[in-house]
Amino acid sequence: MSEKWVTENYKDIYKMSYKYSEKLFSEQSEFQKVEIYKTEHLGNVLLNDDFMMCSERDEFVYHEMMAHVPLSVHPNPKNVLIIGGGDGGTAREVLKHPTVEKVVMVEIDEAVVNACKEFLPITAKDLNSPKLKLLIQDGVHFVKEVAKSNTEKFDVVLIDSTDPIGPAAPLFGPEFYNDVYKCSSDNAIVVSQCESPFFYLETQRSMLSVLNKIFPKVQIYNYSNITYPGGLWSFSFASKGLDPVVDFRSTVTEVMDLKYYNSQIHKASFCLPNFQKQSLKELMK
Amino acid sequence: MSEKWVTENYKDIYKMSYKYSEKLFSEQSEFQKVEIYKTEHLGNVLLNDDFMMCSERDEFVYHEMMAHVPLSVHPNPKNVLIIGGGDGGTAREVLKHPTVEKVVMVEIDEAVVNACKEFLPITAKDLNSPKLKLLIQDGVHFVKEVAKSNTEKFDVVLIDSTDPIGPAAPLFGPEFYNDVYKCSSDNAIVVSQCESPFFYLETQRSMLSVLNKIFPKVQIYNYSNITYPGGLWSFSFASKGLDPVVDFRSTVTEVMDLKYYNSQIHKASFCLPNFQKQSLKELMK
Repeated sequence: MSEKWVTENYKDIYKMSYKYSEKLFSEQSEFQKVEIYKTEHLGNVLLNDDFMMCSERDEFVYHEMMAHVPLSVHPNPKNVLIIGGGDGGTAREVLKHPTVEKVVMVEIDEAVVNACKEFLPITAKDLNSPKLKLLIQDGVHFVKEVAKSNTEKFDVVLIDSTDPIGPAAPLFGPEFYNDVYKCSSDNAIVVSQCESPFFYLETQRSMLSVLNKIFPKVQIYNYSNITYPGGLWSFSFASKGLDPVVDFRSTVTEVMDLKYYNSQIHKASFCLPNFQKQSLKELMK
Repeated sequence: MSEKWVTENYKDIYKMSYKYSEKLFSEQSEFQKVEIYKTEHLGNVLLNDDFMMCSERDEFVYHEMMAHVPLSVHPNPKNVLIIGGGDGGTAREVLKHPTVEKVVMVEIDEAVVNACKEFLPITAKDLNSPKLKLLIQDGVHFVKEVAKSNTEKFDVVLIDSTDPIGPAAPLFGPEFYNDVYKCSSDNAIVVSQCESPFFYLETQRSMLSVLNKIFPKVQIYNYSNITYPGGLWSFSFASKGLDPVVDFRSTVTEVMDLKYYNSQIHKASFCLPNFQKQSLKELMK
């Protein structure tokens, strides 16, 4: 039998290829091509439009760092909103926090949810939690409606999106974040997937620039995983006042069985390499 | 013209491929195949035996983190030994420190030096410094002779090696580090290329276990670059007593024009993700 490889192609100058034994799921949804492959290197992997989204082997890094950083800073997070995050890994980590009473997750593409429920149970395992309300709809539309109706306020908002192309593009723009601001509570924290400092420093600048005009506090923090090109990737941290380091409470996650995040990593993740710090410093506050 | 790609193959389950326009250098030396390609993604890249060694685009990460961490901890580093490091990047960073009077660099493979002098001047630019003594010989043999003759003591020793296969394999073993201990001064620090926590945690355990039996102080620290698989890689830090965080002096590198390393990164790099900390903690002291 000939070898089968699934390949992510970065701008046709760099390729990452993973040997796979089986294509487990493939669907062309209304929004994107959703696929799950069984690989030897990373276990089952999810790709949307040929871009690696997450793998069984290292998904814990991204999901722990997206959820536990803001939830270890907010003093009493009860109401959490996740935009995107269809694989369920972010919801799984959020639900570990005992103060959290309700998680609303708004995923645009049901194909991602279905694929992960069947072939990535490691991330999707808590998608049926009674605390979780899963809505299959456009997150941009959802926050616009909530902002307009003024019915609900979220303490922590997590933008667990793909790259700023295709369906996720508006999730990097000012209109969306104005609505996010309006539907978040007085002490809210907003964390967003914010690309790679090595490869997408301009996207990071653009994202922080958007947040800077809306939120009183804007920072960026880094994590390292296997599946994203270049390894070093970032989340933006925006808040209505809480500081990610000064207001950090160290005890929340200590009893959780985490594989990446801990209190030293929390603080370390806000220490940026010079090239990134120099490019972004005037946008942070 | 058909596309040309140079590929690093990790255990035949993962491949990283870079489009190149030209193969600039190729030599089968006594020790390994040495090649330099001109790529669009990473500039000129050096590969030994088809493994990526460094690229113009991100070589600063590895070289700054190898050199400045120990040189910002040792209070008065004068005499520095580099084993390997044929591309010259580590020497370039070491030579930025004003206290350093002499650097001895022992590279086994002259083909690497010649290739980089011609096609990676960004790393090789200081290989003709009057403070640098470049020896083309086996580093294992060199430290054995220095240890035996008791003629020279080094304040900082940097093991800038390839992976623990082929010519670099002895650089991960106890006999070599016993000799390194003997040819280092009372307050010495020894930093070694120590592979990746995601992919080579067993190699890290083995390396720290070797160092632990010889040196009073053993730690590990991380950095993120583009060219090594998985992005997150490590250096081991061993010393005769100096602690990498407690004894850190922050002012040394502030006047240097560095692209990755700074005093926050120094401390942050010793904060390890849980999976790595749990695996290595009993070997650190």
